[in-house]
Order: sequence, then C-alpha cells, then structure tokens
Amino acid sequence: MNLNTLERPVFLVDKSKVLRNADRMAQKARASGVSLRPHFKTHQSADVSEWLKGLGVRKITVSSLEMAEYFCRSGWNDITIAVPVNIHQIPKIDALARTVNLHVIIDSEYAAARLREGITVPLNVWIEIDTGDHRTGIPAERIDRILGLARLLGRAPALRFQGILTHDGHVYDAAGAPEILSIHEESLAALRNIKQALETGHFSPCLVSMGDTPSCTLVERFLPPISEIRPGNFVFYDLKQKSLGVCRDEDIAGAVAFPVISTNASRKELVVYGGSVHMSRESLPLPSGEAYFGQIARLTADQGEWTAPLPGVYLSALSQEHGKVSGPEDFIRSVEIGATLVVLPVHSCITASLYSEYQVLKDGAAGKFRP
Amino acid sequence: MNLNTLERPVFLVDKSKVLRNADRMAQKARASGVSLRPHFKTHQSADVSEWLKGLGVRKITVSSLEMAEYFCRSGWNDITIAVPVNIHQIPKIDALARTVNLHVIIDSEYAAARLREGITVPLNVWIEIDTGDHRTGIPAERIDRILGLARLLGRAPALRFQGILTHDGHVYDAAGAPEILSIHEESLAALRNIKQALETGHFSPCLVSMGDTPSCTLVERFLPPISEIRPGNFVFYDLKQKSLGVCRDEDIAGAVAFPVISTNASRKELVVYGGSVHMSRESLPLPSGEAYFGQIARLTADQGEWTAPLPGVYLSALSQEHGKVSGPEDFIRSVEIGATLVVLPVHSCITASLYSEYQVLKDGAAGKFRP
Repeated sequence: MNLNTLERPVFLVDKSKVLRNADRMAQKARASGVSLRPHFKTHQSADVSEWLKGLGVRKITVSSLEMAEYFCRSGWNDITIAVPVNIHQIPKIDALARTVNLHVIIDSEYAAARLREGITVPLNVWIEIDTGDHRTGIPAERIDRILGLARLLGRAPALRFQGILTHDGHVYDAAGAPEILSIHEESLAALRNIKQALETGHFSPCLVSMGDTPSCTLVERFLPPISEIRPGNFVFYDLKQKSLGVCRDEDIAGAVAFPVISTNASRKELVVYGGSVHMSRESLPLPSGEAYFGQIARLTADQGEWTAPLPGVYLSALSQEHGKVSGPEDFIRSVEIGATLVVLPVHSCITASLYSEYQVLKDGAAGKFRP
Repeated sequence: MNLNTLERPVFLVDKSKVLRNADRMAQKARASGVSLRPHFKTHQSADVSEWLKGLGVRKITVSSLEMAEYFCRSGWNDITIAVPVNIHQIPKIDALARTVNLHVIIDSEYAAARLREGITVPLNVWIEIDTGDHRTGIPAERIDRILGLARLLGRAPALRFQGILTHDGHVYDAAGAPEILSIHEESLAALRNIKQALETGHFSPCLVSMGDTPSCTLVERFLPPISEIRPGNFVFYDLKQKSLGVCRDEDIAGAVAFPVISTNASRKELVVYGGSVHMSRESLPLPSGEAYFGQIARLTADQGEWTAPLPGVYLSALSQEHGKVSGPEDFIRSVEIGATLVVLPVHSCITASLYSEYQVLKDGAAGKFRP
C-alpha cells in the first residue's frame, strides 16, 4: 500500500518500536523473576502476538471471552480474561476451558456461586482486589470477604483458586512518575497483606498478578509479592503515557494515517478524512486549556517510519468522519489536498480497536480481532 | 435473544420510535415541498433503510464511499457522499457512478481539477459552503470563489454541477432552540445570496441542500431556498439532542444494553460490561460539572421497550470494556449481578457505529454496515 495516496484512514504499526518496547518489558520481567502476561486488548492482533511469542511470551491477558476465543484460534493456550465474569457467559467459559488453560476473575460471592454451579472442567479463578482504582474488585481492606470468597471457591471441585489480581487504573490520574510509583508501592503493601492472610488461611501458594503500563514501565524491578505482570498499552504507548512521563515520542509505536481533504490557511486549519469512527475521542489539554486529540507527524520519504511530532500542530476537533488539524499558517500552506498526515493518538488501545487490520511499516497488513 | 441474560453488549433499536421520528420529518419535508435525503451515517443499516423506504424516502446521504457501496448493494440508487472528495478515491467514485446516481461534494479548485481529470461518467457535484461551522466548505462570503469553482465544473463534460450544500454543525454549540433557529436563518440568508449569484451567472437551477437534525427538527417549515434536507441523527436522537431541546426522552430510539458484572452499594456504584469500545465517549455535564456518558433505563417486563431514564442514575465513567454506573444507594442495591441496564447514549451515531448489528425490540437482529 502506498501510504502517500490513502483511500481510507489506516492504523500504522512500527514493528521495530513494538519489539523494542516489548523486549524491554520482557527483560525486566525475566530479571525480576515474574511472568509477563501482556494484555492483548491493546493490539488485538494475531500477527502482533506472534512477535511477542518470539520474545518468549507464553501467557496472555484479554478483555473479553470473544477475544480469548480469537487468540485460542491463533494458538495461545494460557489466557486470562481480566474483566469480572459475566455470569451469562459461563457456558461459553466452560466450553473454552476445555481447550485452553483459562483464567477468569471474580469480585463477588454471587459470581463465585454461579461459577460453582456452571463450570464442569478445571478453571483457574482469581479474586480481583480493588487497591484504589475503585472500578471493580473487592476492597483491599476487606480481608474477611476475600478469605470467604477463597473458601467458596475451594468448595467447588472444578474451580482452582490461583491468587489475587489487581489493576491500578488510578495511576492514569497521577501527576507524574513519582505519584505513579507511590501508588504502585501502596498496592504492593496491600497485596502483601492479603497474600499473607490467604496463605496463613491455607490458600497457598497465593499468586499475585498486577498490571498497568505506567507502573510496569517505571519500576526498575518487580518486587515481591508480584508473580506476574499484565501491562498492555506498552507495546504501542501513546500521548497519554507520554504526558505521564511514562514514554517518549520515539517509543510510540502505533499511529493513524489520514488523507487531507480540505485546507483553510487563513483559518490555520485543515481537515483530514479521519474522525471519531477512526480515532479515540480521549483528549489532553494544551497549555491554553483547549483539548487536543492527537499530535501530527509526517511519513519519512521511504514510508519506513514517521517523524517526530510537528511543533504546534494538533488534531483539534473530531466529528464522525472529519478531523480538524490546527497549526501554524506556514505548515497549513505546505500541505496539499491528498497529502497524508500521521496522527499520534492520545489512547492507542481504543484507537486501534476501531480498525479491522493494521498496516505494518516496511511490511504489510496485519490481521486483528474485531467483534 | 433474551435481553435479560446478555452475553455481550447490544445496541437496541425501538422501531416504532424510529418510524414516528422519520414520519414526522418526512411529512414536514413533503408539506414544505423539499426532498428528504436522510443521512444514513446514523444507522448505517440496510434493514433500517427499508423502513425509511416504506415512508417514501428515495434519496440518501452517506459519509464514506464504502458506505455508499454498501447501500448501493442494498438497492439504493441516488446517493450523496457528504464529505469532501478524497482525491485518492476518484477511480472508485467513477466506478460507483456507473451504477448509481452519485453525488459528491467539493470545497477546492484542486479537487475540482482532479475530478475533471479522473471522472469519465456523469457525476453530480455540489459545492460545499461554510455557513459558520468552520470545518469544511468555501466560506459563504467568498462568492467569487464559489462562482469560479462552478465555472471550473462547467468545463468538465462528465461533471454535473447541482448546487450548493451546507452542514450547520455549529448548531451543536448553541444554548438551545432559539439560537439554533437563528443560526438556521442566518445560513438561509447566506445561501439565498449565493444561489442568486450562481443563477445570475447562468448556473441555473442551483439546488440548495441543508441538513442538521437540530434545525430540521425545530423549524416548522423548510423555507426557500432549500431544495433538500439531509438530517441524520433524527431517526435515533440522543441525549445531546435532548440537552439542546430538540427531542424528548420518549423520542430516543437507539440505546445500548449492558449486563451488570460488579456492584458496590457502599460506593453507590456498579459496573457493567460495556466500555469505550461499545459506547461513544462524548459526554454531557451534570449540574455539578461532572461529565456523564449516558442515562440509565430498564427494560419493560416484556422486553418490548425501555423505561424513562431513572432519576439520578448515570453512566459516570468508561474504560475499554467497563462502564461505571453511579446512582442512589437504594437503586444500586436493587440491581443484581447479571441484570441488564439500558443506557441512553449522548451521541447515538458514534455509539451505533461500534456495533456490527442491532437488536430491534419485539423483532430481532438488523444487519448493518461495518467497514
């Protein structure tokens, strides 16, 4: 595909950056003696998953049963579905657990009881702990409930209690690296307590699974009690991670390419064919307080990579199929209708989810899951 | 499908409301003597399009060439692609114009020149006018450029200049109905001038196409110089339209249904399986200033419709596959894990675009386009 004459918006992947990002995470996990079970909700691609397999990854995390089925078809056989069980999917979970080493998470006695009734083959179950994100999970201080839930699971022959799992999503509200690391340490302390209580209560060994890209990137080493990490976004990173001090521009490995369809130099704006159906609406604030939805780069002449983001040029508005780019007048004047602009996304996971395939730079199409 | 035991998020359509909304618009168009060319980017569904055909609709608007090809396959043969031509799609536009009465829009001399080179069969071309939205279109006051562009089109044998077209997207920033109507009247005045200049310049007849759901809903009658209207959202409406005073709760005909996967009564929150990959991230402000992403309703006992929105219950946060619902503690306590909640979206078009099919209440699946 000639990326300079785009018929439609495309999602670009820079494989060399993905490999560098993933290798760094894999090496740190290995050096720390923890398993890397990356969250594949970010790329959702069998082709990208093969690259990670090449780095030694054997266990994965997904965000839906259908995504687990997709990666099962691609040959993965140790899969965690890291969203609390939807009780209406228990028959399908039971079916999938016949073919893969399947892990699910729960945060209620009700879901535990329903699993106990409905699961007929060995299924790995983790108790989700809320260490401060306040989305799902049993509050970390409710050690009584956590022990009770482990006991409930213990009474079901098919259910195999594995341990505790958390996602510190609240790191995304942190002001920067120091606050992210301090959230991570608080969570570790809470999980250490819970693990000890569970192991004292004869639920031993109690594994501990953590995972968010900011803390997994920033820590120098994964400390006990962590047994496995589940970062996802780190394969692509994005402007949100950059704004948190988690990655640099040159680490961002996923971007979209949009063709220009209209220009207005006097308004210092142009319009690309690429809107909310091609790009996450998550935004970041400019110093002026205005929101922007992406930063703009160009392709290099050989289309082998994209440049650093252009200073002062932003994706400033999104409607369904139109994206507005604002920038200095001389930049706008330099761009012809039909030209390709690369947009670094604020949130790569959601942006990637909108595409049915990727274009890998210096390569070609990569297949991906789409429900 | 039993909507009370949802395996996955689904997009619900209330056909009786769609028909009522569409019939109201069709009647007003007929009474005003203008054509209704509804924008199908909202539903993108061949099945829904049949309902509109039943009301007399024969011409349609779409937001991409691929969507035009989809509706062409469903038997529609008078189609406007209402996004400025992407010059790299001209060969495909030329191919599609062989089978359907195709209309495209342009806002530059450059695109006109490229169409002139690349189009070999009759193609209807409209000049897009910017009447204040400041996204695409030639500024309404640049009558010299508009006349020049019409002349350029006139010199190309295959290109058939049809008239001028505008989308008053800035009505969505209005404070309410009076401001929307005043924006509409300003646009009419500008278009009247341009039409007159074009017709005086021998580009006669010059048709005038307008279209946005707020003004098309609020005006009592479509006045000259309007020849056709292109509203899209009115088939489903949504909370944004309600907030503008354009529709009422009972007009909203598209919503999502999510199963509950986690509850936390002490935090007055629950979590549904349904996140940013199932729901537009567009939001509205609560009186407190906090953003919300949807209002919550329940299904009626016979699953034939959804209730009015529950007071004080909102979709308050969205991550990739999780949605957080906040509400009074007694409401949260009344909801069991596994229950279905209906969420009225802030923006129905973008939410609908995330699904590969709809569930029509009292009926079954409806097929839709998905690129």
